[in-house]
Amino acid sequence: MVNIAVLGYGTVGSGVVEVINTNHDSINKKAGQEIQIKYVLDLRDFPGDPIQEKIVHDYNRILEDDEVDIVVEVMGGVEPAYTYVKSALEKGKSVATSNKELVAKHGSELIAMAKERKINFLFEASVGGGIPIIRPLNQSLTADEICEITGILNGTTNYILTKMRNENREFDEVLKEAQELGYAERNPAADVEGYDACRKIAILSSLAFGSQVDYEDIYTEGITNITAKDIVFADQFGYTIKLLGSSKRIDGQIYCMVAPTMITEDNPLYSVNGVFNGIFVKGNVLGDVMFYGSGAGKLPTASAVVSDIVDEVKHLHTNIMTTWSSRKLELADIKNAKKRFYVRMEGARSEKQAEAEEVFGAIQAVESEKVPGEFAFLTEEMSEKEYEERAAKIKGIVNRIRIGR
Amino acid sequence: MVNIAVLGYGTVGSGVVEVINTNHDSINKKAGQEIQIKYVLDLRDFPGDPIQEKIVHDYNRILEDDEVDIVVEVMGGVEPAYTYVKSALEKGKSVATSNKELVAKHGSELIAMAKERKINFLFEASVGGGIPIIRPLNQSLTADEICEITGILNGTTNYILTKMRNENREFDEVLKEAQELGYAERNPAADVEGYDACRKIAILSSLAFGSQVDYEDIYTEGITNITAKDIVFADQFGYTIKLLGSSKRIDGQIYCMVAPTMITEDNPLYSVNGVFNGIFVKGNVLGDVMFYGSGAGKLPTASAVVSDIVDEVKHLHTNIMTTWSSRKLELADIKNAKKRFYVRMEGARSEKQAEAEEVFGAIQAVESEKVPGEFAFLTEEMSEKEYEERAAKIKGIVNRIRIGR
Repeated sequence: MVNIAVLGYGTVGSGVVEVINTNHDSINKKAGQEIQIKYVLDLRDFPGDPIQEKIVHDYNRILEDDEVDIVVEVMGGVEPAYTYVKSALEKGKSVATSNKELVAKHGSELIAMAKERKINFLFEASVGGGIPIIRPLNQSLTADEICEITGILNGTTNYILTKMRNENREFDEVLKEAQELGYAERNPAADVEGYDACRKIAILSSLAFGSQVDYEDIYTEGITNITAKDIVFADQFGYTIKLLGSSKRIDGQIYCMVAPTMITEDNPLYSVNGVFNGIFVKGNVLGDVMFYGSGAGKLPTASAVVSDIVDEVKHLHTNIMTTWSSRKLELADIKNAKKRFYVRMEGARSEKQAEAEEVFGAIQAVESEKVPGEFAFLTEEMSEKEYEERAAKIKGIVNRIRIGR
Repeated sequence: MVNIAVLGYGTVGSGVVEVINTNHDSINKKAGQEIQIKYVLDLRDFPGDPIQEKIVHDYNRILEDDEVDIVVEVMGGVEPAYTYVKSALEKGKSVATSNKELVAKHGSELIAMAKERKINFLFEASVGGGIPIIRPLNQSLTADEICEITGILNGTTNYILTKMRNENREFDEVLKEAQELGYAERNPAADVEGYDACRKIAILSSLAFGSQVDYEDIYTEGITNITAKDIVFADQFGYTIKLLGSSKRIDGQIYCMVAPTMITEDNPLYSVNGVFNGIFVKGNVLGDVMFYGSGAGKLPTASAVVSDIVDEVKHLHTNIMTTWSSRKLELADIKNAKKRFYVRMEGARSEKQAEAEEVFGAIQAVESEKVPGEFAFLTEEMSEKEYEERAAKIKGIVNRIRIGR
């Protein structure tokens, strides 16, 4: 029997308890031992709930109990999670976490601590909710050098963009509705400004390239500037707009960014809609693979946490997470990254297209009855720097969105 | 240093050698040791090729060499692969294989042999080519009870169906072209009759449900009856036709079959086109996940084989494949499986719809200028048995295709 302690009885924490109770027999069979929840740490009490008998308010009770082999951190936020996790590892307890802020900020240190002590620090649920992606990156794609990892990593923004597209509605209106439905937070900045996706692509990039990618270094642009007009034009060009977190190795350098991006039907992420997430990986021998599933939600996230617990039970004294060193990976300057751009401009196409061609060279332009007084065009491939220089030479640009492959 | 022997220097075997040479440094780092190819078994010689110095013609050379820890079986076919693999395991050598016939037929026995000896028998490449699916099923989805596993498991038939749809062409014509391009075998039965997909869904089902699913028990229907006319009508109903291998747990029983199936845009497999494969899994807590990638091809398949080799190097004396017992899983009779059906009939809709409604109850019928003298309809949900009984009461049915979710 292996005793575990769950830190936090919120959405994910109660989900972990529920999953372990629901699939008790099959989980214990796969783990090879019975998993018992000995403690649940929470500031609150839950009178009448069977969990109450396991509730403790003092973390030291867990830390000092040598019978606890695994600590499950599902509180979120950097502190006190970081202090708790660190002290658990110091005591020789493995840790499973769903906490992307913690992993993005302190992942390499906590991985190294676990490795030294022949225990484990696992975090499958920190990216892509229930989608198996951390373990496949670490254990399945071992024959490959990763060339690219690009994902729809935030369900809230994907829900908003899908709804805007399907119903041709404006961002503010759909955001408000998503908030009412509980799909978006009251303070939506972490989602809609891309901060959440940024932490997740930092984690994936660190794993894929084996070195620490600091999320603060990643150029991050949210979806607040995307309008119903852009969606009309994108549709006309055969594109859909997705918030992508993306890391690419080009000429030995890693380019990493989070930004709304237009993609075509050929891209496997094109049909990842609603609250779903999708993560595309390109390996130098494997070619393209994609992982798709529920990027959030109580039970899918808890399922991923419990899969880490099972792995830790199976590997109580063996470390299994090998990549991601603390050596900092210096990202390439995205100003040098080359791509095509979508540009929306004020004015009639008939009057302004010539001017746009003078500035940008060959373009593909369209107009739409649904967007009077404006038109849109796609540029040829150019660097971000070159785009900015050219765009500064012309008046009337209302929005620009990057084109993906 | 770990010595390996590769059995067979065909497409996959030479791919394995190429992948190990190409990504030498990163592979050794992830394995924690240097992987050296000591022998390649092949009946042929390859004068002038650097591999020649490793070529042996006698398998006993490999078997008797205690320095060889891992045998890589990439010959295909049940014999002599089975004899070779069994004797390797008996000698305490781990085995990695890409051989779906071998795994479908003898998987449970070989897994048990490896488990007893604390070595490994791994077969990531036997299903879905480069797509990580075996390891995720075995090691990632451990918190879940699997409710469904449905896949586009054969790239050749998916290429043919995609081409038929995109270009509105007939099966025979597209098959011939696929043969000329090397996407289909000269004898295409294994692919187009669904036998290949059948072995693969047998392997996935055995892993997902933990008991032996015999491929001989699986109802299997190929794509040879699908015509351009069906594709016209499918399109009109908003469906695409895919060859799906599918296992579902319904009321405690497992229904398993391989058949062309119509699916809508809501299904994540809808946009898996061309030679790509996609595998959809539904867990009772995880919800829906999908894995997508190259289902075949020299390097993607070799990438999966090498990922098994890396795992075996990391676990030289620890068994890691736990599920799939030899206890036979008795599949439910698919005659009782319920679904909707697409039916194509001879005759004008105006004349025959009433008769069809009399037999099938409520239906949705369409006709098309592109298919003169015929019409098509969708039935309500009914069992396969009920469908057959009703269909026998009416003349003029040309084809019927099952509707997926």
